[in-house]
Amino acid sequence: MKASQFLISTLKEAPADAEVVSHQLMMRAGMIKRLGAGIYSWMPMGLRVLRKIEAIVRQEMNRAGAVELLMPVVQPAEYWQETGRWSKMGPELMRVKDRHERDFIIQPTSEEVVTDIARQELRSYKQLPRNLYHIQTKFRDERRPRFGVMRSREFIMKDAYSFDRDAAGAKASYQSMAKAYRAIFDRFGLRYRAVAADSGAIGGDLSEEFQVIAATGEDAIVYCPDSEYAANMEKAEALAPREPRPAPRQALEKVPTPGKATCADVATFLDLPLQRTVKSLVLATDRTDDAGQVVETQVWLLLLRGDHDMNEIKVGKVPGLDTGFRFATAGEIVDHFGTKPGYLGPLDVRKPVRVVADREVAVMADWICGSNEEDFHTVGVNWGRDLPEPHAVADLRNVVEGDPSPDGKGRLVIERGIEVGHIFYLGTKYSAPMNASFLDEGGKPQLMEMGCYGIGVTRLPAAGIEQNHDARGIIWPDAIAPFTVVVCPIGMDRSAEVKAAAEKLHDDLAASGVDVLLDDRGERPGAMFADWELIGVPHRVVISDRGLKEGQLEYQHRRDAAATKVPAGEVLSFLRGRLQA
Amino acid sequence: MKASQFLISTLKEAPADAEVVSHQLMMRAGMIKRLGAGIYSWMPMGLRVLRKIEAIVRQEMNRAGAVELLMPVVQPAEYWQETGRWSKMGPELMRVKDRHERDFIIQPTSEEVVTDIARQELRSYKQLPRNLYHIQTKFRDERRPRFGVMRSREFIMKDAYSFDRDAAGAKASYQSMAKAYRAIFDRFGLRYRAVAADSGAIGGDLSEEFQVIAATGEDAIVYCPDSEYAANMEKAEALAPREPRPAPRQALEKVPTPGKATCADVATFLDLPLQRTVKSLVLATDRTDDAGQVVETQVWLLLLRGDHDMNEIKVGKVPGLDTGFRFATAGEIVDHFGTKPGYLGPLDVRKPVRVVADREVAVMADWICGSNEEDFHTVGVNWGRDLPEPHAVADLRNVVEGDPSPDGKGRLVIERGIEVGHIFYLGTKYSAPMNASFLDEGGKPQLMEMGCYGIGVTRLPAAGIEQNHDARGIIWPDAIAPFTVVVCPIGMDRSAEVKAAAEKLHDDLAASGVDVLLDDRGERPGAMFADWELIGVPHRVVISDRGLKEGQLEYQHRRDAAATKVPAGEVLSFLRGRLQA
Repeated sequence: MKASQFLISTLKEAPADAEVVSHQLMMRAGMIKRLGAGIYSWMPMGLRVLRKIEAIVRQEMNRAGAVELLMPVVQPAEYWQETGRWSKMGPELMRVKDRHERDFIIQPTSEEVVTDIARQELRSYKQLPRNLYHIQTKFRDERRPRFGVMRSREFIMKDAYSFDRDAAGAKASYQSMAKAYRAIFDRFGLRYRAVAADSGAIGGDLSEEFQVIAATGEDAIVYCPDSEYAANMEKAEALAPREPRPAPRQALEKVPTPGKATCADVATFLDLPLQRTVKSLVLATDRTDDAGQVVETQVWLLLLRGDHDMNEIKVGKVPGLDTGFRFATAGEIVDHFGTKPGYLGPLDVRKPVRVVADREVAVMADWICGSNEEDFHTVGVNWGRDLPEPHAVADLRNVVEGDPSPDGKGRLVIERGIEVGHIFYLGTKYSAPMNASFLDEGGKPQLMEMGCYGIGVTRLPAAGIEQNHDARGIIWPDAIAPFTVVVCPIGMDRSAEVKAAAEKLHDDLAASGVDVLLDDRGERPGAMFADWELIGVPHRVVISDRGLKEGQLEYQHRRDAAATKVPAGEVLSFLRGRLQA
Repeated sequence: MKASQFLISTLKEAPADAEVVSHQLMMRAGMIKRLGAGIYSWMPMGLRVLRKIEAIVRQEMNRAGAVELLMPVVQPAEYWQETGRWSKMGPELMRVKDRHERDFIIQPTSEEVVTDIARQELRSYKQLPRNLYHIQTKFRDERRPRFGVMRSREFIMKDAYSFDRDAAGAKASYQSMAKAYRAIFDRFGLRYRAVAADSGAIGGDLSEEFQVIAATGEDAIVYCPDSEYAANMEKAEALAPREPRPAPRQALEKVPTPGKATCADVATFLDLPLQRTVKSLVLATDRTDDAGQVVETQVWLLLLRGDHDMNEIKVGKVPGLDTGFRFATAGEIVDHFGTKPGYLGPLDVRKPVRVVADREVAVMADWICGSNEEDFHTVGVNWGRDLPEPHAVADLRNVVEGDPSPDGKGRLVIERGIEVGHIFYLGTKYSAPMNASFLDEGGKPQLMEMGCYGIGVTRLPAAGIEQNHDARGIIWPDAIAPFTVVVCPIGMDRSAEVKAAAEKLHDDLAASGVDVLLDDRGERPGAMFADWELIGVPHRVVISDRGLKEGQLEYQHRRDAAATKVPAGEVLSFLRGRLQA
């Protein structure tokens, strides 16, 4: 490929709305172009990256026995009504009416359509297992699209769906996909981690996220350097402390804490460690009648150590909170505690509340909490002595660095990640409402067991850039670079030797299957180098008159601090060595 | 590829709604699956055909210097408002609102978006010419989707757009695309014709359709076997007859024609040739004021020979009718002619009408038309003698077989075609309203001259099938077959020799780059052969125990009446010969 036959358009400045480095660099390198909020065109430079990602995904999916098809972008609502997602999904599901006022959606995923295909096509146990996938445009009407293609509304996803005769088969299909995903992400050349994820309403442990490690990632991921343990923050368990609760040593005392409404302020004010404080979170659950009217409300007090954060997923698993909860209103709080947030605690509540203590809080002694009176906290609080044992003890919090690993093999470390893949055992979540069944050996209909497996194709380039960039621009791994090698001739228009050498090198590399671009635009060296450093092509060869006189070309990897002189006759074998590395 | 790792699902019967053979065969061969009206999933077998089509299109577009990008499916309305298409396009433009009630469309084409990209990216004459294309999902909310993927609502199109500094450049870009299109359609292995098409409001001759020849085609295409002339029916010119108008020989006479309201009935009733009759078509044009109120209506009488059909495109070019016309209402007809349709004519009209005669009618003598009195026609009508010369003479009709070719080199032939490509010189139709300009050598802004070039990717398989099928199923050309070769072992489960030979042949062919499928499903020979004849794989090799004992395999091309025995050792070289053919 020659630059003159391609569209290269780099920018000195990123647009003001580009907040993260991948968005800035993708805009500056001319990889994407904004059309509207969360809607981007993929410019030729960016499309080349996408196509390489798609090719790797496709090869490994096919190798794993999955079969590619292509399901529509615009889907009739009736399928989504069958599974109930038509009404369950919020405004992120883009709805549209056709000329006959019939309802359609623009697909965010394809569970309904693929299950409809399966229930028609897969009628016998002999046709199972089966894994069907497509790489197709999706739309999610995000409330706040941002970060360019990282959280866009229109995007491309590879979504695969497995169909099995029983749960054991589905789990084997899941494991096969887990293996394929590792093969895919290994090939991308990105540092990533597969982490256990919460599998929500389905239950079980079969859900994993594939996270590209990047300091700017939106997700916190948790792993143990001494073992295989890795999970996302939602999922990572905070074990119960092994040490038993110490005996009380302090007397209960109410102390004035004027204007100190946070644990941190209270700890500083009283000159006590934050770890001694306990924070109070007030939730509520409503019981409704058949007409949806609230007939009873239960107020809950959740107690966490002052330096810990609540984990909503874990809270949603506490018996009694697992059918849905909300934060209590200001009115409900005053009604039950007699004061406003900042000074709440489990002592002397006005009306009964259900108290749930985090595992850590349950073994604390001599702790500090609000007195249920404005500007006062109570110190020396002890379970059993000053208040009854909590109604329940549960893991309510996010883990923190240094927490013991749930597998007992070391301590947890936390880093940031960008979710680029997710695999999921679904069971009969979709096959049951859509009655997707097959006939078993006995001729009896059985529901298919399903799994689903996604890769965010258009998010991957952004994740790759968040992980691989420097002040000058992007640094692509070879596998997904828009071009693997760029040949930069200096003074090609003035020197027939330079022109001939550049074209020969380009042609030789192209003939041997290397994805090479010859920059024949005639830019000055400084502007040309800056472009390619911004765009992030990993391997660069510079050809100049002076170099040719010495019989040498200059090679520089995008990560190298300086160029290496390579004898002109050896440049092909030299490059082959570098490309294989 | 092994059949057991693929999804093969053939049907004995086509669904009742499949009217045309391509739709029936695509459904029966398991290539597509209906999701809703005009919305289909591409099943694995069909997707392989699509991918081959896309690859050929991509290669030839790139070879022609076009650059691929990817523009969004969902596009903000604002761009479509800039060009006016937001209001001009009818309900076939699928409109959708996002969660903020902002307007979007699901793209039917991408002129607006690509012009927006061009006006940002192409700022200098040095960056022109430029051709940008994408292969992307489109949606047109057809009033009556039908014929499967032939006229579907969701479809995939390759659409390219060229940008040039002037009209001469744009025409060169157009010619380059015309050449690329021929290369593309040549490679598909389908019989096609490039025909001149009407270029509508833009004017000029630069519009061509690429039509796959098929008896079931929706379009009539016209060509001259003795020259290069080819056009679609809308465009093909009916020359003015060379012979001058004969002198009148008959007297004018009103004759009773009770209940004979069509030219055909009148000719039969009077025992005169249909070619002597003249039919009357009544149109109207309205002049409106600034508020859109009709202030004046002009009624037009168009006269065509009784056996000729009106061509609306041509009528729309008659001065006075070229700003829009409609058919006259029943009231307007009675008001002007004093009688109802069936007995109309240019003689004795009640109120003045503008008379436009087709070129053919203008040179007729002694013709027959309605008497403007129910159940009466007039014979022996002659221009100049019985009525004034027409206000205008024009080409108003469709050509018929045997008409002289407009290039004067022979006579026209008509056949049916399916439009699969269209190339179009656009001028500044989009660049002007969107102000897509570049700076010329003098630093002066100039509007870009554009062209657009489409290929109906998802329609092509259907067109290919309409052209290539027999009673047993599809017959794919090699280039776009889902598989090029199918290896059919007989009794693979019983015979280790058959299994080994089949697998070796499959592996050898695959290793040499042949797209081969091994049917290891264990079907009986009859069912297996029927499947592959239905699916239409062009080359089949049958391996049986009996054959192997004789050292022979059986080869049969899908068009062959019988199989050819091939020595087992020569099958690879034999196939290579057949595949090259």
